[in-house]
Amino acid sequence: LVVMRELLLAEPGQTLAQVMLREPFRLAPETPVGEAVAATVRRHYPVYPVCDEAGRLVGIVRGWKLFEHQALELSAQSGRMVGIDKEERVGTPFWAAFRARHPWLQINLLTAFLAAFVVGAFEDTITQIVALAAFLPLLAGQSGNTGCQALAISLRGLTLGDFDSLPLARLLTKEALLGALNGLLTGLVAGAAMWWTAGGLDGNPQALKLALVIVLAMTGACLVSGLFGVLVPLALRRCGADPATASSIFLTTGTDIAGMGLMLVLATALVL
Amino acid sequence: LVVMRELLLAEPGQTLAQVMLREPFRLAPETPVGEAVAATVRRHYPVYPVCDEAGRLVGIVRGWKLFEHQALELSAQSGRMVGIDKEERVGTPFWAAFRARHPWLQINLLTAFLAAFVVGAFEDTITQIVALAAFLPLLAGQSGNTGCQALAISLRGLTLGDFDSLPLARLLTKEALLGALNGLLTGLVAGAAMWWTAGGLDGNPQALKLALVIVLAMTGACLVSGLFGVLVPLALRRCGADPATASSIFLTTGTDIAGMGLMLVLATALVL
Repeated sequence: LVVMRELLLAEPGQTLAQVMLREPFRLAPETPVGEAVAATVRRHYPVYPVCDEAGRLVGIVRGWKLFEHQALELSAQSGRMVGIDKEERVGTPFWAAFRARHPWLQINLLTAFLAAFVVGAFEDTITQIVALAAFLPLLAGQSGNTGCQALAISLRGLTLGDFDSLPLARLLTKEALLGALNGLLTGLVAGAAMWWTAGGLDGNPQALKLALVIVLAMTGACLVSGLFGVLVPLALRRCGADPATASSIFLTTGTDIAGMGLMLVLATALVL
Repeated sequence: LVVMRELLLAEPGQTLAQVMLREPFRLAPETPVGEAVAATVRRHYPVYPVCDEAGRLVGIVRGWKLFEHQALELSAQSGRMVGIDKEERVGTPFWAAFRARHPWLQINLLTAFLAAFVVGAFEDTITQIVALAAFLPLLAGQSGNTGCQALAISLRGLTLGDFDSLPLARLLTKEALLGALNGLLTGLVAGAAMWWTAGGLDGNPQALKLALVIVLAMTGACLVSGLFGVLVPLALRRCGADPATASSIFLTTGTDIAGMGLMLVLATALVL
């Protein structure tokens, strides 16, 4: 490789062999784009040679093409979490968008049936304590959001390569404790609401027990959702899939079953 | 600006004034990083001059720094949707992560109370048709996922600047119809499950009506969630906030209220 600067600074008598770089930085044809971006980010050359194993030039790749590709990949991540194809843009035609999105929605429904089945198993409990019905979606939504926070941080860590420097056990402990603490503090507020709803002011003796059920269920559900937020993308990557693929769908299934199941089990055991 | 190539190709008798670029590409000190990235992506120079209005050089910015910043911003988006600070990484200490995440979870709880309040208003309906309780979180989860698909595509469009070339009305129509069709098709499956749950096989005359309620509620909820997926980020941007900020929290509030409210209103009107 001959660089302009070397040409300029060369003595008149030198040959090209004397000024050229013998081992320039190069990419291999089989390098994934993500790795190529990581390798080139600080170099920021306008163009990179792509060479085969013998060192023969097989092509070139423009630096801006690599970065444009990386930006497209990154901007697709929040969509992939809910089953959006990484090629889809706002201008994608109706039927193409439908075909790509619909299968994931049916899968989401299938996983939601599992959670609904758990709720259905406690029909007697709900018949006796109807106030629980309003807390079912609240618990699902709350633990889902807590879990998606952990999930987003984990996916970001995988994207930016932060995981290599951090032991998995420490991250799991951190997210489980964060989930439990966040669940406890929001659970106290929700528990107070349950106490009020169940007629705590009118001296209903069950109101305090129901409030306790909500606090415990919220803490437990958010603890589980913190763990799932870390484990779901790692499991997807282990299976050879993109760690973001439908991760939000798998996460909410787990947290819904754990959270609503825990609440109904506790209500049945402690209150009835 | 004097470029190496011009130096190399210059005739021996020329002065610098003859070979230099008089109006080189430059950035202004007040340019937002996002715009700077858009302006520089295809140039991919190693370094850019930053000049004030009079054209005086006030500093330089390295090209790779601009792209590293952009990559960090993009990888933070899925976290911002659920209330994660864009600075947070997997290595962020426990209490810093807690302080940044917790307020959004309390806001999520507050908005979830609105939805729970709607459910609570129909306690009588649920007491009479307990099977509805299991379909509440199913409906919320399903319309939430449909809405997050539309949301992710809208945010991606805003990030990549696709919105300028597409009329808003067309996008709203597309997402509303996509939501309605996806809701109808998943609603038919969920409706069949409701028919079966409600004893349609045993000849319960209400089973078919309940199934119809589920199909209509699912279609309506997913239609609304498609609209919200486009409108929430645009509203946030209009308010001067980052369009991703807690967008998923605002979206699910709207879809939960619309979806569960619709189901309970329809059940009260058509079945009781």
